[in-house]
Amino acid sequence: MDYSVSEKFRNLKPSAIREIFKSLGAAGSISFAAGNPNPDSFPVEEMRGLADEIFGKEAVTALQYGITEGYAPLRKLVAERLKRVYGIGTPDDDLIIVTGGQQGIELTCKVMCNEGDVVLCENPSFIGALNAFRSLGARPVGVPLDGDGINLEELENALKNNKNVKFLYTIPTFQNPAGITTSLEKRKAVLKLAEKYGILILEDNPYGDLRFTGEDVPTYKSMDTEGRVIYCGSFSKVLSAGMRIGFLSANKELISKIVVAKQVEDVHTNVFFQMICAKYIERYDLEAHIAEIREMYRRKAGLMIGALEEFMPKEVGFTRPEGGIFLWCSLPEKLSLSEFVRRAGEKNVFVVPGTAFSTDPEEESHSFRLNYSMPSDEEIGQGIKILADIAREMLAEA
Amino acid sequence: MDYSVSEKFRNLKPSAIREIFKSLGAAGSISFAAGNPNPDSFPVEEMRGLADEIFGKEAVTALQYGITEGYAPLRKLVAERLKRVYGIGTPDDDLIIVTGGQQGIELTCKVMCNEGDVVLCENPSFIGALNAFRSLGARPVGVPLDGDGINLEELENALKNNKNVKFLYTIPTFQNPAGITTSLEKRKAVLKLAEKYGILILEDNPYGDLRFTGEDVPTYKSMDTEGRVIYCGSFSKVLSAGMRIGFLSANKELISKIVVAKQVEDVHTNVFFQMICAKYIERYDLEAHIAEIREMYRRKAGLMIGALEEFMPKEVGFTRPEGGIFLWCSLPEKLSLSEFVRRAGEKNVFVVPGTAFSTDPEEESHSFRLNYSMPSDEEIGQGIKILADIAREMLAEA
Repeated sequence: MDYSVSEKFRNLKPSAIREIFKSLGAAGSISFAAGNPNPDSFPVEEMRGLADEIFGKEAVTALQYGITEGYAPLRKLVAERLKRVYGIGTPDDDLIIVTGGQQGIELTCKVMCNEGDVVLCENPSFIGALNAFRSLGARPVGVPLDGDGINLEELENALKNNKNVKFLYTIPTFQNPAGITTSLEKRKAVLKLAEKYGILILEDNPYGDLRFTGEDVPTYKSMDTEGRVIYCGSFSKVLSAGMRIGFLSANKELISKIVVAKQVEDVHTNVFFQMICAKYIERYDLEAHIAEIREMYRRKAGLMIGALEEFMPKEVGFTRPEGGIFLWCSLPEKLSLSEFVRRAGEKNVFVVPGTAFSTDPEEESHSFRLNYSMPSDEEIGQGIKILADIAREMLAEA
Repeated sequence: MDYSVSEKFRNLKPSAIREIFKSLGAAGSISFAAGNPNPDSFPVEEMRGLADEIFGKEAVTALQYGITEGYAPLRKLVAERLKRVYGIGTPDDDLIIVTGGQQGIELTCKVMCNEGDVVLCENPSFIGALNAFRSLGARPVGVPLDGDGINLEELENALKNNKNVKFLYTIPTFQNPAGITTSLEKRKAVLKLAEKYGILILEDNPYGDLRFTGEDVPTYKSMDTEGRVIYCGSFSKVLSAGMRIGFLSANKELISKIVVAKQVEDVHTNVFFQMICAKYIERYDLEAHIAEIREMYRRKAGLMIGALEEFMPKEVGFTRPEGGIFLWCSLPEKLSLSEFVRRAGEKNVFVVPGTAFSTDPEEESHSFRLNYSMPSDEEIGQGIKILADIAREMLAEA
């Protein structure tokens, strides 16, 4: 049969990263391609005890339909933590539990954008968000990312030159893929531009809890006095990614629309794991748990940066993230990224080429993303050495 | 701030049913308004044991990111059961796990429909599906439902009179809200019309396992030789609704597009509960468990039908479902539905007015939906007596 799928889906491809992810796992391979948290960050034994307790005492609540807004005790606990840790939440704000941050991003666009509306994005940006916007007929327009965040001049140009810009999608802290954190000055300037041009900001902060060096920078949402910022958070990187629990904090009026959008998408998020999260926060010390994850990632990021400094030819640049799970390497322009990625794959080392994160799929890239949360300490050293050898080999040939 | 939400969401309201559901639970109230399975249908102790085993032996698989298509052992087990029980699945078909049947419905529309495309629906129909279509800019067009399924003449008229009809959305077995099952003759005729006019069929079958009297009617999908039918199923009514696990079986090409759509919506469905479902099917006798649920609902439906026959004035019509969880009552046209629902609410008996299920929100209705899976046996008798008294009272006044 000839299936006439919608225009939006005709050309939409599966995420290159998730496709790479599927082909991994061969013995002896070293993957820097993942976006996964290290499984040591899952509090398995605590969850096991809580699960048994829920099945013993509150099974009906956990297994029956729940309300779309989310499990009330979890909504309260998340709102309290956002206020305490990030200064987020005003009396005009509300909070909804979503099926992972991905759903928070998708629902925001679904509620805000008509077909053809523009979403401004850092370039490079998170492929899952870019494809979510495309899947809804919105048009992601990229703005170059500098070392301290989005380029302000280019942002204002994009605001001037595009009609129907609805919001800026940004990952201001430990950005995916670049590992960059937007400076406070830049955040203030971006907020002013958003105000001047009347757009919203979708602040995606899945890695914000994972700072292992430097000082916290205030979130956009904490500086927002007008209800202009929609804040998207997640438990994926601190409790479990597979359970799919995230949240959105925004003005009540927007959240009420997002509730309607979520109701027709999946009715509500898995109740049992919403209860697991709530009970974990009530019973255990989430901040101490996060501190342990930070320590692990500080070590792994340090090993990777150390290996890059020691082995990588100086022609290859890389970012030095202060948190999160990624860093971003850039080859000199004379080297072919696809050739580099091919040779790395032949040696069983996997990275994600920068093209996967570009707002313009036709754009050339010389960069690639490295993940340090998943590989073992040994794999980090070995893998970077292999990548450095390939870079040196290609430089000699060039 | 003035939020300029998308045109599609400007007028979309939360489901009236879920709003009614939120206000329930006052002591002494009797609710026939739910769409919930009876909690006695949740195999709590079995799940408790399986959960402990998963946390003990396979915690990392359960808590880490999974693949969008779903947990492979569950996909295989569901495909095998669909083949064995329903004759569903050809070598050209594939299966994806979704976050409840609701997501299966929404994703199908998202992948198939451009804005303005038409989805034909039984009238009345499941409000969650109608709103999902509206939320994507598709236009649900209602076709009247007769006692043996959709009206064929009106279906053909709708196919002739509407441009860009993409698919027919149907709940052929124990329909929500009407409790009606489409006859085999009608299913064959509908398939022929779909072929003649080149549309797909989205067969939603959340209640199919719950037949308690009469003979099974073949699913559309089992009679589909062309890849024209997309089949949506769910574990919500047989294992747990709150876990949000459903599935779609359709032609490979369509499933591959639906995978892309799901990836940008929630990446994948909660892995832990996909594993719970798979292990439950492997370890226990799902068919025996379903047989127990059927027995419970046979009793409850029998009590409700018995009470309606005994107490309800003969001017009030009602359907006699052979399975599922709903029946459908119709007041004589001279009685006001809203007045009836108001008086019932005053006596703490809750029903869902038919207006909530209409494809045309402006359409007048004289019908209401009764659920028998949730109320206790005693509540069924008491509640129907109260409704019958109100009907008699209103008939005397008319």
